[in-house]
Amino acid sequence: MVDMMESLIDACLGLSSLDILVSGRIVDVYGGNIFDGFVGVKNGLIAYVGRNPKPAKKIIDFSSGYILPAYIDGHIHVESSLMTPSMFARAVIPHGTCCVIADPHEIANVAGLDGIKFMMEDAERTPLKFYFMIPSSVPSTNLETTGAEIGLKEIEALKRFKRILGLGEVMNYRGVINKDRDILDKIRACEGMIIDGHAPGLRGDDLCAYTLAGIGSDHEVISLDEAREKLTLGMWIMIREGSTAKAISNLINVVSRGCPERVMFVTDDRHAGDILREGHMDHCLRRAVEEGLDPIDAVRMVTIKPAEYFRLESLGGLSPGKSADMVVVSDLREFRAKIVLIDGEVVAKDRKYLGAEVKVEKSFASLMESIKIGELRLDDLRIRHPRRKFGKTTARIIGLVEDQIVTEEIRQELRIVNGEVKADPARDILKICVVERHRGTGRVGKGFVMGFGLKSGALASTVAHDSHNIVVVGVDDRDIYRAILRIREINGGFVIVNNGLILGELPLPVAGLMTFLEASEIAEKTEMLEEAAAKLGCKIKNPFMALSFLSLPVIPKLKITDFGLIDAENLKIVNLFID
Amino acid sequence: MVDMMESLIDACLGLSSLDILVSGRIVDVYGGNIFDGFVGVKNGLIAYVGRNPKPAKKIIDFSSGYILPAYIDGHIHVESSLMTPSMFARAVIPHGTCCVIADPHEIANVAGLDGIKFMMEDAERTPLKFYFMIPSSVPSTNLETTGAEIGLKEIEALKRFKRILGLGEVMNYRGVINKDRDILDKIRACEGMIIDGHAPGLRGDDLCAYTLAGIGSDHEVISLDEAREKLTLGMWIMIREGSTAKAISNLINVVSRGCPERVMFVTDDRHAGDILREGHMDHCLRRAVEEGLDPIDAVRMVTIKPAEYFRLESLGGLSPGKSADMVVVSDLREFRAKIVLIDGEVVAKDRKYLGAEVKVEKSFASLMESIKIGELRLDDLRIRHPRRKFGKTTARIIGLVEDQIVTEEIRQELRIVNGEVKADPARDILKICVVERHRGTGRVGKGFVMGFGLKSGALASTVAHDSHNIVVVGVDDRDIYRAILRIREINGGFVIVNNGLILGELPLPVAGLMTFLEASEIAEKTEMLEEAAAKLGCKIKNPFMALSFLSLPVIPKLKITDFGLIDAENLKIVNLFID
Repeated sequence: MVDMMESLIDACLGLSSLDILVSGRIVDVYGGNIFDGFVGVKNGLIAYVGRNPKPAKKIIDFSSGYILPAYIDGHIHVESSLMTPSMFARAVIPHGTCCVIADPHEIANVAGLDGIKFMMEDAERTPLKFYFMIPSSVPSTNLETTGAEIGLKEIEALKRFKRILGLGEVMNYRGVINKDRDILDKIRACEGMIIDGHAPGLRGDDLCAYTLAGIGSDHEVISLDEAREKLTLGMWIMIREGSTAKAISNLINVVSRGCPERVMFVTDDRHAGDILREGHMDHCLRRAVEEGLDPIDAVRMVTIKPAEYFRLESLGGLSPGKSADMVVVSDLREFRAKIVLIDGEVVAKDRKYLGAEVKVEKSFASLMESIKIGELRLDDLRIRHPRRKFGKTTARIIGLVEDQIVTEEIRQELRIVNGEVKADPARDILKICVVERHRGTGRVGKGFVMGFGLKSGALASTVAHDSHNIVVVGVDDRDIYRAILRIREINGGFVIVNNGLILGELPLPVAGLMTFLEASEIAEKTEMLEEAAAKLGCKIKNPFMALSFLSLPVIPKLKITDFGLIDAENLKIVNLFID
Repeated sequence: MVDMMESLIDACLGLSSLDILVSGRIVDVYGGNIFDGFVGVKNGLIAYVGRNPKPAKKIIDFSSGYILPAYIDGHIHVESSLMTPSMFARAVIPHGTCCVIADPHEIANVAGLDGIKFMMEDAERTPLKFYFMIPSSVPSTNLETTGAEIGLKEIEALKRFKRILGLGEVMNYRGVINKDRDILDKIRACEGMIIDGHAPGLRGDDLCAYTLAGIGSDHEVISLDEAREKLTLGMWIMIREGSTAKAISNLINVVSRGCPERVMFVTDDRHAGDILREGHMDHCLRRAVEEGLDPIDAVRMVTIKPAEYFRLESLGGLSPGKSADMVVVSDLREFRAKIVLIDGEVVAKDRKYLGAEVKVEKSFASLMESIKIGELRLDDLRIRHPRRKFGKTTARIIGLVEDQIVTEEIRQELRIVNGEVKADPARDILKICVVERHRGTGRVGKGFVMGFGLKSGALASTVAHDSHNIVVVGVDDRDIYRAILRIREINGGFVIVNNGLILGELPLPVAGLMTFLEASEIAEKTEMLEEAAAKLGCKIKNPFMALSFLSLPVIPKLKITDFGLIDAENLKIVNLFID
């Protein structure tokens, strides 16, 4: 290591051979220029940038292509892809990504410190540079049973890992403004590190108070005014263009021409199928240029800008001494990656991953058997009226809003038959249950939901924000019960049942959240599940995603957890029946 | 401290009183906007930025004025002002400066670690935020006798101080490119810290090799092309506008409108009189706006940009949680500072310093008695021809070039009388001597110089780059001798002698480089010295500055040190006489 500098200088001056010499049009993210030249690699680092060819062991000649620094995603929950970090890496590297900053919020809610350690260990198996933020809101409320907690002790333990950059999105902005000891102590524990924010619509004095805690970014911004106000207070804006939320078209004008100060693109979540069809950060680049952004500015927002914000000094630009992480693309409109290098190794070519095969490691046994539902009888799923045997009752029903994570509260009359209230598929009133699956308490939250359209059968899933208990929607208790039991058999995942038969499933054995399958297999299986659901009458394109947000008690208006129905605006449990 | 965040949040939300509320037009260096609003201060930090007035113990109302973050000078040798850090602070704070990054290269050459410690201790006596870079080239050559050395041991000792940010300008760029162990080891010792550069005119492959060492900035750039090439390699450009070198008019176009990426202003050196007459960073702002730069961009280049480069996260912008360091100016053309706050204290008002009186501390006794010239006789100053008693000889004569630090080599015939060669004021050929003053060796370098124009008398100085031996120019040996002895009596400084009488002097008792006087006193005395020199026939406006560069052996062409005449192009000692 002492002689690293000497070795680079020799290769730069042509006194020894470079490992690789790449020729093409170099995109300079510092000065904002493009010039024909050469990038030389030695020992995994950039040893030369300039106009003169140099002796090299290997020549990569893309004279008509553009050489860019490889891309960085500044905020993503990898679990949303259903892939483990190492499998996620295989999917995104061919699209030019060299680094992601992941918030392992989902697995932390299931498996705490062990879950995060799994993510960090699995990340070691890939050339993709994974960094992690410590989830700040585990659990996010006391309105559900969570699998674990990330408190001060866990934060202290995690801070010591070099892959940890700071505290993940501080969603509890109300807590910060109210000076809740709990969240402020977590922030204090991460002093000097990066503190990411999450404060949709927060403005004015409250926003000012929020930034006083040292929170440096926000990816929840949706309006230009809000973005500008946040920039003025020194925050970084993460323009989110993921599988769910898409903000590029709204926010693109926050970037002054030639100057994307403190602005970057992130995805937040990215599904396997979308990565295959559209890509990852290259999709953000494509969308941004479509919206009229200068291509070099766009490139800056996925390279040098996130590197600056996260203080990743070896990443983000093609300059001497940095990691040799680069992408060659054929144009600055489609950004189709011809070749991707990470640490000077060719890791993808023509959209094909060339890195070493990932050896699936099933360590972390506890993560692989995470479904603990205790004893559950069919009878436990019945919804009984607390007082009456027959007649009618009015129920609070969750009203699904397609493509949104908010819900409505709908009030409908339902019949009581022999003390029980059932689903009414004719009116699209289905039954929904959340079964606690972390501690085997046997606790089940029960209610009704409108909007799925199922005529028969049941859909169950262990991907259910934030605690990832089992959420199941269905017409008939037997199918609901069967789906729950199947979920247990496969250690979590997605299941569709009809008349007692398993119509389809996608096992997610890692904490009930992720699989070791490849993106293409996941996409294929997800499509099959969607088709199966559609055959049962489901009118939602992506029913498992819709399902996953129905248990999220921090988003209005009516949600359900294992504790029962939740008034998410007032953060309290409410009765199913109004009368 | 645990409750600091809570206290700021309370004040931000109006639940408790702010210490100070400043109203005016807020210059937002992040988003590049200006808006009418309020900046609230609590516990020395910015607790509020926004449009709503808040309860405060003290109101500063400058509604028609502009509130800017206070200024940062990213590269200065404070010694050049002849003031100690604490006195320098009194001079620049009223001009809006809150922070300087100083390279104590001059005092380090005289007094090493002790000299730098003196600077750091003296810096504690002022609200100005002093940071220091470790001088990388002490000594800069082996062609002179220096007072001290900054080697790896000293670097390790200095790194531990919180005011030390990294390694100062790496002037030995040839050494870096040639992989000289000595300089590369110093750079390695500062890994992870800031490494400043100094590479005038370095381009192409050599520049690339230089940046491989991790050198992040350059303040020696003079052409636009050079600046752009350096930016492309990821370097920061420090546009220098000091008392000596002025680059704003050449380089201003390197800044794209609305986007001064990786560009800042620095002064490098700033004389007391210039600070009084023109100012400090406010002068850079004025000059930049005169040259057509957008005022907000200019402000960025003395605030957020240096803060980013030096990773000074609490400085550079008016955003919640940062140090309450701000300047209110009446317009964005003159940038005349109405009021200056540092850490929430009003430290200057209407160009008057309001900070606490600096108590002159004469600790560091060795620094105060730094002139050790051993035994020196008048006879030691004579220049004898090595071979002949009478006749003529041809001498290499240093040709002064006014306002430049380069010199010419002039060859002239001189008469030998009784074995001795003397000055010939009729032809403006004066005698120049450099007397070693660190170790009492009695070593004297002797030669001739053209360009001063003195008709009689002698000028002596202990400010003589880089080693700061005594440099003296004069007509007559007796006056030269008298001047040297006077220098010793006053512990260093500037002296003018004529016919044995002291015509004027400015004692610089701190290492022979600095005084405890105020800027105005220094300016006054310097002017008197210039007048006295002019009366002796001196045709150079600033003879002591001219003198100070004649001993700098790294700048072409012919220089003089205590070792004798130096061919500064080939870095070797040459004979005075050619025949």
